[in-house]
Amino acid sequence: MSAPAGGREPGPDMEPEAFRQAAREVADWAARYREQVDEHPVLARVEPGEVASRLAASPPEEPEPFADILDDVERVVLPGITHWNHPGFFAYFASSSSAPALLAEFVAAALGGNAMLWRTSPAATEMEERTVDWLRQWVHLPEAFRGVILDTASTSSFTALLAAREETGLDVRRRGMAGRADLPPLTAYVSDQTHSSLEKAAIAAGIGQERVRRVPTDDRFRLRPDALREAMEEDRDAGRLPFFVCATVGTTSTTSADPVAPVADVCEEQDAWLHVDAAYAGPAAALPERRDLFAGWERADSVVINPHKWLFTPMDCSVFLFRDDEAVRRSLALTPEYLSSGEEGATNLMDYGLPLGRRFRALKLWFLFRFFGGDGLRERLRAHLDWTGDFVRWIEEDPRFERTAPAPFSTVCFRTKPPEETAGDEVGRETVNDWNRRLLSEVNREGSVFLSHTVLDGTYTLRLAVGSIHHRRQDVRRAYERLVEARERLARGADG
Amino acid sequence: MSAPAGGREPGPDMEPEAFRQAAREVADWAARYREQVDEHPVLARVEPGEVASRLAASPPEEPEPFADILDDVERVVLPGITHWNHPGFFAYFASSSSAPALLAEFVAAALGGNAMLWRTSPAATEMEERTVDWLRQWVHLPEAFRGVILDTASTSSFTALLAAREETGLDVRRRGMAGRADLPPLTAYVSDQTHSSLEKAAIAAGIGQERVRRVPTDDRFRLRPDALREAMEEDRDAGRLPFFVCATVGTTSTTSADPVAPVADVCEEQDAWLHVDAAYAGPAAALPERRDLFAGWERADSVVINPHKWLFTPMDCSVFLFRDDEAVRRSLALTPEYLSSGEEGATNLMDYGLPLGRRFRALKLWFLFRFFGGDGLRERLRAHLDWTGDFVRWIEEDPRFERTAPAPFSTVCFRTKPPEETAGDEVGRETVNDWNRRLLSEVNREGSVFLSHTVLDGTYTLRLAVGSIHHRRQDVRRAYERLVEARERLARGADG
Repeated sequence: MSAPAGGREPGPDMEPEAFRQAAREVADWAARYREQVDEHPVLARVEPGEVASRLAASPPEEPEPFADILDDVERVVLPGITHWNHPGFFAYFASSSSAPALLAEFVAAALGGNAMLWRTSPAATEMEERTVDWLRQWVHLPEAFRGVILDTASTSSFTALLAAREETGLDVRRRGMAGRADLPPLTAYVSDQTHSSLEKAAIAAGIGQERVRRVPTDDRFRLRPDALREAMEEDRDAGRLPFFVCATVGTTSTTSADPVAPVADVCEEQDAWLHVDAAYAGPAAALPERRDLFAGWERADSVVINPHKWLFTPMDCSVFLFRDDEAVRRSLALTPEYLSSGEEGATNLMDYGLPLGRRFRALKLWFLFRFFGGDGLRERLRAHLDWTGDFVRWIEEDPRFERTAPAPFSTVCFRTKPPEETAGDEVGRETVNDWNRRLLSEVNREGSVFLSHTVLDGTYTLRLAVGSIHHRRQDVRRAYERLVEARERLARGADG
Repeated sequence: MSAPAGGREPGPDMEPEAFRQAAREVADWAARYREQVDEHPVLARVEPGEVASRLAASPPEEPEPFADILDDVERVVLPGITHWNHPGFFAYFASSSSAPALLAEFVAAALGGNAMLWRTSPAATEMEERTVDWLRQWVHLPEAFRGVILDTASTSSFTALLAAREETGLDVRRRGMAGRADLPPLTAYVSDQTHSSLEKAAIAAGIGQERVRRVPTDDRFRLRPDALREAMEEDRDAGRLPFFVCATVGTTSTTSADPVAPVADVCEEQDAWLHVDAAYAGPAAALPERRDLFAGWERADSVVINPHKWLFTPMDCSVFLFRDDEAVRRSLALTPEYLSSGEEGATNLMDYGLPLGRRFRALKLWFLFRFFGGDGLRERLRAHLDWTGDFVRWIEEDPRFERTAPAPFSTVCFRTKPPEETAGDEVGRETVNDWNRRLLSEVNREGSVFLSHTVLDGTYTLRLAVGSIHHRRQDVRRAYERLVEARERLARGADG
């Protein structure tokens, strides 16, 4: 054996004392990183290929000391990191690592293993069932729901689609879909604001991108139940089979909340599976003052909530809740002999998803809920809503800016008005869009904040998403100030 | 805000100094756990429901001190853990956490974030491309392959199946499969030894379980190319469309290696996608003395290798390699406006799989290769093969045992012979199987080793899989000794 470090005859892995030392160094490194994260630009400043050029082109043949590798994290990795834990990260939806959830991730990795079967990790299995139920109680979903933790909302929604596909009774699991004269085209329904992952799920499941109907939304970007009913009836009349509807509470662009109750009525009429994508906004259902936005979700067949978005849990942690345990297992469960075990009354979590291997993700939720408490988590969400309200006010009171959509949760869609427009002139849409594109680029270049964008009915729109455990009121204020400064720089450039 | 700990006005998260302290405690805990892992029984001794009964039924409302939570890891979690990092873990395939890969997992979690787009984590994106290429070089796959890291082989093989489905030119992505008169039934081919995840992938993709043909294997459990050709021709004659073949190097039950070169010939003739599942055995391709078992895999369209199996990387880390970048993206890539970025020459890894969100998994491979060196990794694999050879010899020299399959890699299939059989009597198969079932249960109960089983042509078979970074020769020896002791206990029980 070659010696990884030092002169002693090595064991197969790092020596215990060296590991203890290295683990402490990593712990200290992590503490330092978290403390100093705001000294980095939020958005990585490297060019494509720059990080790769600092990595060896071929795998090293000889071992290197651990300290050198850790040093290279600073030298090579950090400049190429977009810091999602930076308090100035307001892009997309937050995905932040709270201290307890991060430490849980380390504990889970140290325990290692694979929770595919109950027996291969009883603790991971039962804690997953329990913490998913904690989340269910906390967001006030009925007891009829149970669930599992998957990696992302894309996977959770895909799993829902497969269960719905099997619930048609067309035996797609066994017989497949190609070359069957007895199958009508299966159609799924989303809104024009639904996340693209639903379309991707339909592609993967063999439903087809064309057979995902994008139902129009109202002037607040909410799916129109009347338009949904019409589309489903039209398809049914044309011989197609409407089988799946996704309503979203907290859409990706504007965080609009589809009216789930009337959508559930339509699904009942049409005998279609109702999936609710609450990946981002789900935690807000824990707040009585926001619960009306979720009205009707308790009637869904399945719901997805991602604690790795607005619940301070590092990627990945997507909770997939469903009513009909059998429906989910019927669509996917498969046990070969080498995985048969046979404990009575035990759940094998591999039966609830495509991947066989499963990490111990529940530990993050367990640490999180215990460390902050359900009440503490609600207070943090309330603070985010509060600061979002401040930002909305600043934008609304400032003639240089304009809100482009309602802000029911912790995300604001807005745009700047070019100087001509604030002066009262008509300005073409492309000019306005171009100004906003340049403003986004300018504000992100500065380094202390990072926002992203969307397009709403042809209007290029900036988005500010509060929701990181590292956000404070002053960070939201700073984002506003940086936007104003960047806009002034652009205006001066435009004048001069 | 409620105070998570102490009397000071809390920040939204744990205070920096408290985090530093807690992180060190977790580091020390991990070091202690690793040092003392062999003091636990390998296989958890709890009953179903036992762990759950020690977890609160409802989420706590009040915050708890971090120290209490960490204490409960010892009290509540550990008794329910099956210790995959125990040196006596010989079940399934190993999934062990080497020190550098484990520490990389902590660093990656501390950095957090989501590598969906290049810009959301340039370092994670480029390091993924680079380390996947390191692995490719190390196992001697041609430059034509590139790849990504997904969670599990189930997901990698599923992604391969989707690319193959699109390569048929039938526009399944856009038009789906249901209700199309122009589509022939699509058929996929595996052997009777192929992992169940391929069948699950075909179910999920809408191909259908019935349309996965299980081609028979030879007397060494290897897919028979002649039978494959015959099945494909038969299907084609019947109007079906053979489009996908999975060959396995290192099957799950016996680690048999399908003859990939003649299978590739058949795939070429039949214009079908060739996927090679080398999830377990892939790393052995780094050893010149085992490379003949992989002959022909360089002609595959896609290959999966799981470093989280026999390459000392904690779950999850599945490397999905493919030749035709476009084919994979064509089957799945989808970019909504809110995810458009537009860096020239940058790869957005979300385009290569179903999940949008992606963790920084490449860091584990980077730490691993640098700490052990490519040469050090090969030496560790060679040691495993060596000890496996010892175990095979012990079994073959012992009249109480019998090998039930060849052992081309680090896994041995064997059975015990009941006393009547060693005495020369004919014994019915059910009696023999029952003896082996009881032997497995008896040896696993003792606590210092954990083996799993399979069934080969109706013969209940025990499996010993070497491959953990924590395995040493004496652990393999101990497994043999425990088997002998357990078998003697059973024999005494049978006599007495």
